[in-house]
Amino acid sequence: MSLNVTVWNEFRHEKKNEKVIAIYPDGIHNAIAKPLKAAGFNVTTATLDEPEHGLTNAVLEKTNVLFWWGHMAHDEVSDEIVERVKARVLQGMGLVVLHSGHFSKIFKTLMGTTCDLKWREDKDRERLWVVAPGHPIAQGLGEQIVLESEEMYGEHFDIPQPEELVFVSWFSGGEVFRSGATYKRGLGRIFYFRPGHETYPTYHNPEIQKVLENAARWAAATPGSVPVYGNAKPLEKMPE
Amino acid sequence: MSLNVTVWNEFRHEKKNEKVIAIYPDGIHNAIAKPLKAAGFNVTTATLDEPEHGLTNAVLEKTNVLFWWGHMAHDEVSDEIVERVKARVLQGMGLVVLHSGHFSKIFKTLMGTTCDLKWREDKDRERLWVVAPGHPIAQGLGEQIVLESEEMYGEHFDIPQPEELVFVSWFSGGEVFRSGATYKRGLGRIFYFRPGHETYPTYHNPEIQKVLENAARWAAATPGSVPVYGNAKPLEKMPE
Amino acid sequence: MSLNVTVWNEFRHEKKNEKVIAIYPDGIHNAIAKPLKAAGFNVTTATLDEPEHGLTNAVLEKTNVLFWWGHMAHDEVSDEIVERVKARVLQGMGLVVLHSGHFSKIFKTLMGTTCDLKWREDKDRERLWVVAPGHPIAQGLGEQIVLESEEMYGEHFDIPQPEELVFVSWFSGGEVFRSGATYKRGLGRIFYFRPGHETYPTYHNPEIQKVLENAARWAAATPGSVPVYGNAKPLEKMPE
Amino acid sequence: MSLNVTVWNEFRHEKKNEKVIAIYPDGIHNAIAKPLKAAGFNVTTATLDEPEHGLTNAVLEKTNVLFWWGHMAHDEVSDEIVERVKARVLQGMGLVVLHSGHFSKIFKTLMGTTCDLKWREDKDRERLWVVAPGHPIAQGLGEQIVLESEEMYGEHFDIPQPEELVFVSWFSGGEVFRSGATYKRGLGRIFYFRPGHETYPTYHNPEIQKVLENAARWAAATPGSVPVYGNAKPLEKMPE
Repeated sequence: MSLNVTVWNEFRHEKKNEKVIAIYPDGIHNAIAKPLKAAGFNVTTATLDEPEHGLTNAVLEKTNVLFWWGHMAHDEVSDEIVERVKARVLQGMGLVVLHSGHFSKIFKTLMGTTCDLKWREDKDRERLWVVAPGHPIAQGLGEQIVLESEEMYGEHFDIPQPEELVFVSWFSGGEVFRSGATYKRGLGRIFYFRPGHETYPTYHNPEIQKVLENAARWAAATPGSVPVYGNAKPLEKMPE
Repeated sequence: MSLNVTVWNEFRHEKKNEKVIAIYPDGIHNAIAKPLKAAGFNVTTATLDEPEHGLTNAVLEKTNVLFWWGHMAHDEVSDEIVERVKARVLQGMGLVVLHSGHFSKIFKTLMGTTCDLKWREDKDRERLWVVAPGHPIAQGLGEQIVLESEEMYGEHFDIPQPEELVFVSWFSGGEVFRSGATYKRGLGRIFYFRPGHETYPTYHNPEIQKVLENAARWAAATPGSVPVYGNAKPLEKMPE
Repeated sequence: MSLNVTVWNEFRHEKKNEKVIAIYPDGIHNAIAKPLKAAGFNVTTATLDEPEHGLTNAVLEKTNVLFWWGHMAHDEVSDEIVERVKARVLQGMGLVVLHSGHFSKIFKTLMGTTCDLKWREDKDRERLWVVAPGHPIAQGLGEQIVLESEEMYGEHFDIPQPEELVFVSWFSGGEVFRSGATYKRGLGRIFYFRPGHETYPTYHNPEIQKVLENAARWAAATPGSVPVYGNAKPLEKMPE
Repeated sequence: MSLNVTVWNEFRHEKKNEKVIAIYPDGIHNAIAKPLKAAGFNVTTATLDEPEHGLTNAVLEKTNVLFWWGHMAHDEVSDEIVERVKARVLQGMGLVVLHSGHFSKIFKTLMGTTCDLKWREDKDRERLWVVAPGHPIAQGLGEQIVLESEEMYGEHFDIPQPEELVFVSWFSGGEVFRSGATYKRGLGRIFYFRPGHETYPTYHNPEIQKVLENAARWAAATPGSVPVYGNAKPLEKMPE
């Protein structure tokens, strides 16, 4: 059965900035969606300016994995929709948070920290080294992915210690960054993946696309077991 | 240099419920504070009905470790104070969350999950087994703490996987619970400790008091190193 | 493509002890193998008294996941074969260690600790509670598995803190135990699963069989990425 | 009460290689010991060519934290002494493994993996970034330590995922490395710290010395609680 993937994008830079338009004429969401479709997933997109940001209950209910790209308009995402997305993650929807999504409401509320970091928009080369070669998200990759130009993100990255650290980035300017990190929250799986600044053609890179495909598969929930909460009768004879 | 410990309590049950008043005539906060004072810490208390819930900026600024007990009035804690406490935790203040504090706003916002669980108020016996005997929070304990009567909390407990799991509880009714769990968020350390329902004399138990003392020492921040965030110049020569 | 599963058993109790023979007339390995075959895996068995304990290089080379049951004859497993199995795990073969296998050479050498624990062979009831309901190994289970009679294993269990803790057991005699624990070592995945004493019909229990099936799927390696070791030339221009 | 620290060194390079002798005329062990003495610890040293490698039962019994530097003679360390050191770690002695000690018998047996890595002896600059700024081992540091020249170690480093990752190194040649990693095994705490190749003056660097001092304090065991193993009587009434 094919996974239902929803790619969410704030879709603002691509309407205003000539440089971004040149790289992503159909929007970052469609660039992300394309290889996921090619991998056989059922992919739809949703953007900030749609009603309910395109994330209605009906959409979320059938989504197995949600990708999230946002940057300049984090504050315009309604708190109500954020709570809705969070509830779905805790019920088992996978979430893949991309690049500047580190400062999105949804990521910050799931992490509980500031998610702050160091950054530089210049001509840095980035090398994403695989530090967990047996991880499903590293499947089919070489030992590193090289991006000739990307925005730099540097440590300290204020996140909870990752449950699994999959990638660590090297930047030509002298910084390092924990670039691929997994978490579980409730029944849901979360993957944060660093690269993808809007002024670089990162999502056209086949190795980056492979990571996104792997991440979708990894983040999709297994049905698991169903937890029970609330008041409970004793299962055994109680002390007198 | 002695630690500054602030014990926060919603202090409502102790004003209304005869059974609770009989056990904690001065309030749960003072029962918790007493052995911490005896251990040599500078201990003050704060309660819900004080101005700013007793948690002014001045109080939080000098607090090394904050203990939190709440139950029936979580919703009355103002969001602004919760944000203030969270900010201090992320800057390095230790936080020890007790029992029904699992559903407090401050714990839920730091965890990112529902923090839901199973419960029963009956005459369960609880056995808190030490599963991390070398941990500082287990210092001076035997291999288990037995509480003849306590409220039961049962799995599944909807928290992020603990960074360190220190105690697992056995209950006579047939349940288990991850009763002592540590987390780091930002520069701050968090310890959740399960026992302490208001209708049982748990905080008068010397072994429980020993855990609280250990937890205060553990949760107190070391100065650490100071992270730097924001825009950053290259440290190395950049690619042409 | 179907997984190749090899079930290893020391196969000694089943030749000597009438009680065990009555429960497992074909040996514990065949009882474990049966539902794994029914799940569609290619299953073979291997036992201690076969040449090379049945674990030749050819067998290990094609094995995706190895199950290990041993108890009374851990010392008779040759160090050379243990090293061979360990090397295969580090290269990506999954390993599921069962019950008294906690004291096997292969488990101890992969853990680095004594793997000691508390035990009692009596008529304890065991309740295995799922503490990670979203985990693939919990797929299709209820919130607990009840075994009417099993040997008790109690904490402290001297293992490295599990990377993921999936089950915690409750025992009627008052103990708890971390009963389902995952680890990664090299490219390989390891799952320790507690139940399965030879004098109880545990491996005939359909829920236990479901866990073994889930564990086989989980432990099977994804190809991942191939790490490179040893002397390396610079990738970037070096400082003068 | 002052900590008893034992600094172990194979002490071979410093007898043969003029370049090393010039940097460490009294041996690497004495260079490591000097700032630890200045920090107020009781420091003694032990070397490979002493009887029992200087690690008699009496020495280990009173050692709170053992530092380990070895490189060219790992194979000459007797298996019996390695087992002795391992037993003491599991009983609570701290262990700080330095640089090429990643391939020592004691580290490999505690990790259970190959501990392999990538390396280059050239003129790399190393930047050790603090990724856990609140950790006691980072106390008093800036956000990074810069070493103008060091041997490069690069990922993949074949270790179990660190329980806490404290440092990540950047190298000018394009590599990254998980340079500061903590583990607990039994009652003991282990810290691996990357820098310290014999042909560079790394242990004379005051920031590196600060890390070693912090590591000694962190690795020293708290008495904790004493685990009990073996056959156990029921604590509760058993099922009929």
